[in-house]
Amino acid sequence: MTVEELSAFLDATFPAETRPSLGEIVGIAPGSVRMSLQPTANMLRPGGIVSGPTLMALVDVAAYAAIAAHHGPEPMAVTNALSITFLRACKVEPIMADAHILKLGRRLATIDVRIWQGAEDRLIAQSTVGYALP
Amino acid sequence: MTVEELSAFLDATFPAETRPSLGEIVGIAPGSVRMSLQPTANMLRPGGIVSGPTLMALVDVAAYAAIAAHHGPEPMAVTNALSITFLRACKVEPIMADAHILKLGRRLATIDVRIWQGAEDRLIAQSTVGYALP
Amino acid sequence: MTVEELSAFLDATFPAETRPSLGEIVGIAPGSVRMSLQPTANMLRPGGIVSGPTLMALVDVAAYAAIAAHHGPEPMAVTNALSITFLRACKVEPIMADAHILKLGRRLATIDVRIWQGAEDRLIAQSTVGYALP
Amino acid sequence: MTVEELSAFLDATFPAETRPSLGEIVGIAPGSVRMSLQPTANMLRPGGIVSGPTLMALVDVAAYAAIAAHHGPEPMAVTNALSITFLRACKVEPIMADAHILKLGRRLATIDVRIWQGAEDRLIAQSTVGYALP
Repeated sequence: MTVEELSAFLDATFPAETRPSLGEIVGIAPGSVRMSLQPTANMLRPGGIVSGPTLMALVDVAAYAAIAAHHGPEPMAVTNALSITFLRACKVEPIMADAHILKLGRRLATIDVRIWQGAEDRLIAQSTVGYALP
Repeated sequence: MTVEELSAFLDATFPAETRPSLGEIVGIAPGSVRMSLQPTANMLRPGGIVSGPTLMALVDVAAYAAIAAHHGPEPMAVTNALSITFLRACKVEPIMADAHILKLGRRLATIDVRIWQGAEDRLIAQSTVGYALP
Repeated sequence: MTVEELSAFLDATFPAETRPSLGEIVGIAPGSVRMSLQPTANMLRPGGIVSGPTLMALVDVAAYAAIAAHHGPEPMAVTNALSITFLRACKVEPIMADAHILKLGRRLATIDVRIWQGAEDRLIAQSTVGYALP
Repeated sequence: MTVEELSAFLDATFPAETRPSLGEIVGIAPGSVRMSLQPTANMLRPGGIVSGPTLMALVDVAAYAAIAAHHGPEPMAVTNALSITFLRACKVEPIMADAHILKLGRRLATIDVRIWQGAEDRLIAQSTVGYALP
């Protein structure tokens, strides 16, 4: 899939109202997908930082996009489990999410997603996501 | 804190735009808080079920509310880690979230949050959330 | 299954050398199993407390026992994912593990395991374990 | 720290009886530590594969070693939370564990640990470990 095809798949899959809060595809590589999100005021929490749920939604969609790009556009893949560790406060600056497939099995896919700002090793959060494949 | 006080704290803490998607306080008991959420169209994902990010946001706010109710209204508590397992598809029906404090330490609080529909033992998701206290 | 039958299943399943470090079945109830473990010197870590790996092994076997007691003695059930939060130091005193089945599906079982000492609400650790059923 | 110094620290820290089951340090690099473990009969579970608790113990010690190598030999660092996903059956062959520090804060360290066999991208398990620093 190309970036355009994957973007179109996400556009068709999520409600138009929520789609903008889920970020944009910026790159696809073997086993991985990169997304970016520009935070807006409704994503903030006390302290003027980006909220955890905003980042969890980005993690979830990035994992979903990685499966779509490598397994095929499968709208019915559902999150089975997700664990996330928050490492630094997320500023109101562009947010990057790199999703790497750790294992693509027949029934389960496991994806590592790293959220960063400014530089790839300045991690904001790390998450491991399991998706059940239909 | 009363249900009204805790609701007012959440209203004051989250952006007005996102507040409705975070549910309502319906009860406070020693060590726990119960919330409910009526899903809306923008919370759906393919299959016509409520999305994982909607449930993760509800889990996060329920844990936050449990800390506020038992530790005091502390807007600066931040999620440190969250792990969630999705157990059943979440239907477009009222969603309940029960947050129980497992340990309220000086620097870290750990909360068990269970999402259910219809009956307390018909679990939709179970989550364990760690919050860092300032 | 009775406590004796479940104990015999565990004895037959694990190597004789490691079996003692995995605790004893002390009770079976609908949806749950209770185990206990008396810690020994080789289970300690710096600080004179019981090590994390000792508790993780106990969590894993308690979840396995809960599946055996409720789904049938299935030696080939394998751990798919485990997340654990350590809440208090574990003393050199009897350790209790309560495993409750959250969902027993066709292909996946999810079990909540709580480790405690002294009183049921004095939690040492909480864990959520996913097992793949063959 | 050198491989020899880090090995000596682990030897001094863990009970002599359990030390051999925790593997050997094979390399130290900026931000990471590599360990290896040769499985033995008492580490097996039904199916003739290496047990989950064996791998969780290896993950835990590899994270501990990574902290010791980069923060200093701190015996009192304690595991705060650990989440692990098992990706493939672990064969009775040498097991490698690569621990990378994601964030070394003042009070908390977060470490990504990957268990593999045969090739770095043939992952057996991925784990994220949080350690509380004293």
